[in-house]
Amino acid sequence: MYSDEQYMREALKQARYAFEEDEIPIGAVVVLDKRIIARAYNQTEKLQDVTAHAEMLALTAAANHLGNKYLHDCTLYVTVEPCVMCAGASAWAQVRRVVYGAAEPKFGYRRHGRLLHPRAEVVSGILAPESEELMREFFAQKRK
Amino acid sequence: MYSDEQYMREALKQARYAFEEDEIPIGAVVVLDKRIIARAYNQTEKLQDVTAHAEMLALTAAANHLGNKYLHDCTLYVTVEPCVMCAGASAWAQVRRVVYGAAEPKFGYRRHGRLLHPRAEVVSGILAPESEELMREFFAQKRK
Repeated sequence: MYSDEQYMREALKQARYAFEEDEIPIGAVVVLDKRIIARAYNQTEKLQDVTAHAEMLALTAAANHLGNKYLHDCTLYVTVEPCVMCAGASAWAQVRRVVYGAAEPKFGYRRHGRLLHPRAEVVSGILAPESEELMREFFAQKRK
Repeated sequence: MYSDEQYMREALKQARYAFEEDEIPIGAVVVLDKRIIARAYNQTEKLQDVTAHAEMLALTAAANHLGNKYLHDCTLYVTVEPCVMCAGASAWAQVRRVVYGAAEPKFGYRRHGRLLHPRAEVVSGILAPESEELMREFFAQKRK
């Protein structure tokens, strides 16, 4: 019932909203005690702000919801491997579980080593084909 | 007249505002064509938001000012070595010059390698003693 796949489907919904608004289609949700407490999608174009990644907006929204900047017991779901900035933000927020879909060999944090919270569990590849297809479709359309 | 030291003094002013508001005293300014276009200080406590570092707020404010998320020709001044999150943000914004004061061996980006924009020039140590003293004073007071 409460599976990583289920929450990733919600993150993918967010990614599709980004797609519809001509943003790089990445979505994120934050889950606490099986409940989604924040949802966000990438808005860097609309806001003309490089910091407006899905994860950043979701972490800020989750902290606002809880009235606490620390998100120890939360899981961050994001459709694509977080970048360095978002990995750093999740480390500061002490997020202990990060679940992502598609790998991002070029802009992902992984090639820079361990940037998440030292105690964070990482799960990758959840619904990765769906995330990859959405990204591929977006960039194919952009090239036209 | 227009020296790195002069702009760093402005960043230090911001850091002192943070200190007065019981925030970790770090300040930042963004300079374009010798003019300061954004000023900010750390507000993670007040906003209960780990993403509210001085640099993040300054980069967002500069982009808002310009109506453009890319800050190629800007210099980011910050009183303390940026963290991974802020280094990542400045890379996305394509900031080509980063000037910081005090080194931050534990939480700074440098120990993770080159996280800024590949073409960014980095200048460090500008008014470092002033920044360090402010940080030391803050944490000494906290321990009391």
